[in-house]
Amino acid sequence: MSKRVYLNAFDMNCIGHQSPGLWTHPEDQSDRYKDIDYWVELAQLLEEGKFDGLFLADVVGVYDVYEGKPDAAIANAVQVPVNDPLLIISAMAHATKHLGFGVTYALTYEYPYMLAHRLSTLDHITKGRVSWNIVTSYLNSAAKSFGLTKQIAHDERYNIAEEFVDVCYKLWEGSWEDDAVVKDKERRIYADPSKVHPVEHKGKYFNVQGIHLNEPSPQRTPVLFQAGTSTKGRAFAAKHAECIFLNGLSPEIVAGSVKKIREEAKNQGRSEEDIKIFTIFTPIVGETEEQAQAKYEDLKKYISYEGALSLLGGWTGIDFSKYDPDQELEYIETDAIQSVLEGYTKANPNKKWTVREIAIETGIGGFGPVAVGTPEQIADEMENWIRITGIDGFNIAYALAPGTMKDFITYVVPILQERGLVQADYKAGTYREKLFGDGKNKLPENHPGSQYQIKKSLV
Amino acid sequence: MSKRVYLNAFDMNCIGHQSPGLWTHPEDQSDRYKDIDYWVELAQLLEEGKFDGLFLADVVGVYDVYEGKPDAAIANAVQVPVNDPLLIISAMAHATKHLGFGVTYALTYEYPYMLAHRLSTLDHITKGRVSWNIVTSYLNSAAKSFGLTKQIAHDERYNIAEEFVDVCYKLWEGSWEDDAVVKDKERRIYADPSKVHPVEHKGKYFNVQGIHLNEPSPQRTPVLFQAGTSTKGRAFAAKHAECIFLNGLSPEIVAGSVKKIREEAKNQGRSEEDIKIFTIFTPIVGETEEQAQAKYEDLKKYISYEGALSLLGGWTGIDFSKYDPDQELEYIETDAIQSVLEGYTKANPNKKWTVREIAIETGIGGFGPVAVGTPEQIADEMENWIRITGIDGFNIAYALAPGTMKDFITYVVPILQERGLVQADYKAGTYREKLFGDGKNKLPENHPGSQYQIKKSLV
Repeated sequence: MSKRVYLNAFDMNCIGHQSPGLWTHPEDQSDRYKDIDYWVELAQLLEEGKFDGLFLADVVGVYDVYEGKPDAAIANAVQVPVNDPLLIISAMAHATKHLGFGVTYALTYEYPYMLAHRLSTLDHITKGRVSWNIVTSYLNSAAKSFGLTKQIAHDERYNIAEEFVDVCYKLWEGSWEDDAVVKDKERRIYADPSKVHPVEHKGKYFNVQGIHLNEPSPQRTPVLFQAGTSTKGRAFAAKHAECIFLNGLSPEIVAGSVKKIREEAKNQGRSEEDIKIFTIFTPIVGETEEQAQAKYEDLKKYISYEGALSLLGGWTGIDFSKYDPDQELEYIETDAIQSVLEGYTKANPNKKWTVREIAIETGIGGFGPVAVGTPEQIADEMENWIRITGIDGFNIAYALAPGTMKDFITYVVPILQERGLVQADYKAGTYREKLFGDGKNKLPENHPGSQYQIKKSLV
Repeated sequence: MSKRVYLNAFDMNCIGHQSPGLWTHPEDQSDRYKDIDYWVELAQLLEEGKFDGLFLADVVGVYDVYEGKPDAAIANAVQVPVNDPLLIISAMAHATKHLGFGVTYALTYEYPYMLAHRLSTLDHITKGRVSWNIVTSYLNSAAKSFGLTKQIAHDERYNIAEEFVDVCYKLWEGSWEDDAVVKDKERRIYADPSKVHPVEHKGKYFNVQGIHLNEPSPQRTPVLFQAGTSTKGRAFAAKHAECIFLNGLSPEIVAGSVKKIREEAKNQGRSEEDIKIFTIFTPIVGETEEQAQAKYEDLKKYISYEGALSLLGGWTGIDFSKYDPDQELEYIETDAIQSVLEGYTKANPNKKWTVREIAIETGIGGFGPVAVGTPEQIADEMENWIRITGIDGFNIAYALAPGTMKDFITYVVPILQERGLVQADYKAGTYREKLFGDGKNKLPENHPGSQYQIKKSLV
């Protein structure tokens, strides 16, 4: 296999990210999330391991579906308390040279003018190493914190998102021409006003008039990430995203999603090379298979049952506290439960999926595969996923922070490097260049954002 | 004089901050603002100089009153382009241990739930070294960028601000009890849900329901800065601010403002010790008086006439492009001009203030004093200001970045230290403790924000 595979570390500015309860493990350090040293150390570790990026998820709101209240989430530190992801980037950028930074930034409760301003700032201070994970908030708890009685309807959120990113493109791509900044100390001109244009946007949701506050950053539009699996979400991702997350418990499930999204992208005039697809993957590495398995069994002891179901409750809207832990899901005849069960059953049809079983399955690494084995076995499993699904990379989730990443970098990355799957060293350039090739700093011509680029005729 | 005097560096994430045109000086480095190394070096320099804080101004919008367009501001880099101030803090916090960070964060175009979340994050990652400069946006250009046809009326902005900070206090002070976070790995409890309370705010401008997303940060409410000189603004500052900026060209002018605001604060039940007052001050230091004067004359050559008037136009709403540079202001009989002139005339009654003269006066350090002299003379002048005005500290503005700070730290700070005016070394503690004394981490009891603190009865 000669495909170049991309690696992101999957994390969040909170405790135990996708492994609820594991913060209680003696080796876990994720409760150091408030300490900027912790993040700097992580970024340096990832750069030593030649990771392409650190991807920071974010959730605005709390998981309060379980028991109809946030208590289980609070008690088990299930993505609450949480700190803002954007604000820790500059320290990590200062301490590294190549690592990319993916930041999740929900557009639902933000003005496009400010979001574009902040992401341009990050693109400047990282020297072009930033990507934006475009999300629309999905929790009712968040909506209430912003003065709404409940969440904006799903499809409407995507209509807003469509106009929102359009405004951002206008600001990022169309406001300052490439040669607007002249920085001429002799002539005393910093920028040529005739080459800085106000955006004039009048839309259904936003009216924006004025120049972008930032001069052009290395990438202008940050690399765009998205994770949309609903019909509307997939259409949005296929149109706008340069990198897409598709999660699932088995490669066969993910293969189907990959196929659908690539077809959709093709319909939108984009090609396979324009989009990199990532899936979540949690590696539990041991020197021997037995050691790895023992490690996994030890980790599982620390899973918080209630924490895992809080998380799953937030994602699915199902209050699992209503069911007995040993109840088998196949006998709970609600559409929601059956839809959730489908994902688990496809991954492992021979298992009797009880409520407890799905809590344990979700309790390490979230809704995605946990690979347990020797370094070679892990590498094989990753190749297996690539072959079956056609994905381009992985979001490596952790059971223990930073232990999971440390083990993966120490034992698995060298094998992936030997096999020529991942980079042995960084190339120069921005995040977009590193993902898509030399000179590809900016959005490609077939991307909807590029329509606002100011083309110069060659006179 | 035995008064402890506080020093902030006054800066902004842009070029030439309050000294329009001086970026063209060969020694100026402010055009490195996009480089995070630049900010880390500055923070380290200030910490070497035992500065109390780095204060970052911010403006959302562009200065487009001059000639009715932003061209002069763009050409001369007058606070545009500009990067976001919050996003550079973590790198500086990581590289320093004691320096405080004042961030300007306009509330006009932000949700209180998000602003509170972001400032709590900063307070965590700085280990309690953050302050919030509360501002309401004042530029029409900004309003248009956020979908309004023009700026919200001044008094209404303060009504919104009043409710906005009230929501923030509820989130910061009242949501998580002091002992809510137990972090007990044995019992597997991170936080006690019975000690985490949702905010239930229903107001005229905001409805906010939900728990604060962040666990309590070292200071909870960041140190509150404000600069209000209008009647409404002064009332707001006297009620909420712990540190206040009052600018003026002469100590006599500032003395009047200090007196008014202290009286107003007293009326609100607060005492003199609860509020520190700062004024802007730009030092031009030379070994001899002649050298300092020569330096000042050299610097003045780099002032941008149009840039200075763009800045002043934004602050005052007056389009100075309509007047001849040599026209004397006393003969321009508009209320606005006469009101602006008053400040300059009080500072220097013997001067014929032409349009050009006020451009030059504003062109270094903005609307505040420029002290030119030997280190001793500068120190004397600072003592003079303290004696006449009763202020507690200075916002040191720069003519050249970082040269002005470097000179001040090398030559003036040691003299101020000898005289016992500024600290020779840092004390431990948060920013609020450093400003107000040991143990004073939190808002004091007579502050309106403290009403939401959850007091425990001693049973």
